Amino acid sequence: MTTVLKLGGSVVTDKDSRETVDQDSLARAAAAIADAGWEDLVVVHGGGSFGHPNAADRGVSRTTGTADAAAVRAIHRAMGRLVDAVTDALSETGVPAVPVRPFSAGYRNADGSVTLATDQIRAMLAENFVPVLHGDVFTTVGEGATIVSGDELVVTLATALDADRVGLCSTVPGVLDDEEAVVPTISDYDAVEAILGGSESTDVTGGMAAKVQALLDADVPASIFDLEGLEDFLDGGSPGTLVERRRTRG
Amino acid sequence: MTTVLKLGGSVVTDKDSRETVDQDSLARAAAAIADAGWEDLVVVHGGGSFGHPNAADRGVSRTTGTADAAAVRAIHRAMGRLVDAVTDALSETGVPAVPVRPFSAGYRNADGSVTLATDQIRAMLAENFVPVLHGDVFTTVGEGATIVSGDELVVTLATALDADRVGLCSTVPGVLDDEEAVVPTISDYDAVEAILGGSESTDVTGGMAAKVQALLDADVPASIFDLEGLEDFLDGGSPGTLVERRRTRG
Repeated sequence: MTTVLKLGGSVVTDKDSRETVDQDSLARAAAAIADAGWEDLVVVHGGGSFGHPNAADRGVSRTTGTADAAAVRAIHRAMGRLVDAVTDALSETGVPAVPVRPFSAGYRNADGSVTLATDQIRAMLAENFVPVLHGDVFTTVGEGATIVSGDELVVTLATALDADRVGLCSTVPGVLDDEEAVVPTISDYDAVEAILGGSESTDVTGGMAAKVQALLDADVPASIFDLEGLEDFLDGGSPGTLVERRRTRG
Repeated sequence: MTTVLKLGGSVVTDKDSRETVDQDSLARAAAAIADAGWEDLVVVHGGGSFGHPNAADRGVSRTTGTADAAAVRAIHRAMGRLVDAVTDALSETGVPAVPVRPFSAGYRNADGSVTLATDQIRAMLAENFVPVLHGDVFTTVGEGATIVSGDELVVTLATALDADRVGLCSTVPGVLDDEEAVVPTISDYDAVEAILGGSESTDVTGGMAAKVQALLDADVPASIFDLEGLEDFLDGGSPGTLVERRRTRG
């Protein structure tokens, strides 16, 4: 039972204060993981106040690259400080966390798709380590280096590792409808469009529509929840919104 | 023309002083690379006084592993401090160096062999970055994590990248014979044995016999030299000892 768990940048950092770890919510996430057990668990965290300002300062995004090796190193090192904080917090609760730096393990192709080596991650899981990846600067064909988001890595890992479950833990309790109520399940693209208004409103929803569509494409059950729901998710529950493609019946 | 250059731990660190960078010889190596040009150049450095004491403290070697994630993180972070120093020194001279952390990119198989992802390294070279790898802690099937040496990575990279040339820059000017003279060429295993006494004296020679045999196996021309010879090597010369398998004539 392989699980890919994303801890959003808003969970592990204080988004309003540059390069500041949110020690309280990080400790809470770590305790939930320690309680539930970590067998075959891969963690991915976002950039939060470490990644985003450092990337923005240098004009680098998911689609706009830099050829400047100094910019690459600066963004990568900022994320190195954050992954050290995250692995330390996990370690405090007894979780055998080890860092996997995406810049070292993959690259973005000319068509925008992500290639990531995962055999080493499988080897880590087999040795009972908990690999921790993160949004990072990422070598990109024809662009130097762009940013790879934690969400992109989650979808890539879920597919490559043939994961059984994906969890996206952020500061929102799930996908919200017009009346700010959590939508319990989303099972097809039409539902995404009906709820989130499709691709036109991607920016307005903070990329939620695109995220849900990518999860439907990956075809692995994914739950979207906040810290309140993390223990439930790790115990096998479905807090927040469950994104799961409807099975076609023969 | 792909070149893999190893900078020994004795070149980039002061081996007698824990976690101390040898800034002078590192600057000299960086200047030589800047002068010669860095197209399709991959750099690998050893652990020196960062890697060895941290691994030894925790009882980890190439063959003895650890299941302790804290030990893995400690060794890996020490090497992170060194690769930051090496990429900074290269950057000072204008070389667009970026780090590639072996722990993130590969693992050791049960038979002791090394698996390392290299597509991302090819992508970096195509974007004119200079990837810098290093001896590191390394997930190992059945052992938790062992140490992967810079020399192992050099041989793995030379093969996987189909490199044209390998250079091993250390503090010795080449392979030395009984009378401490540099042997200009070594072209077969018999010569290794005649000069170095074969595997029995591997320890005595600091692993030189095993290293030369691995280079002969990789079947890529490899030069063994010291800092004095680095510019000559990068300009296409053959300082020190050239290890190159003799071609069979049809």
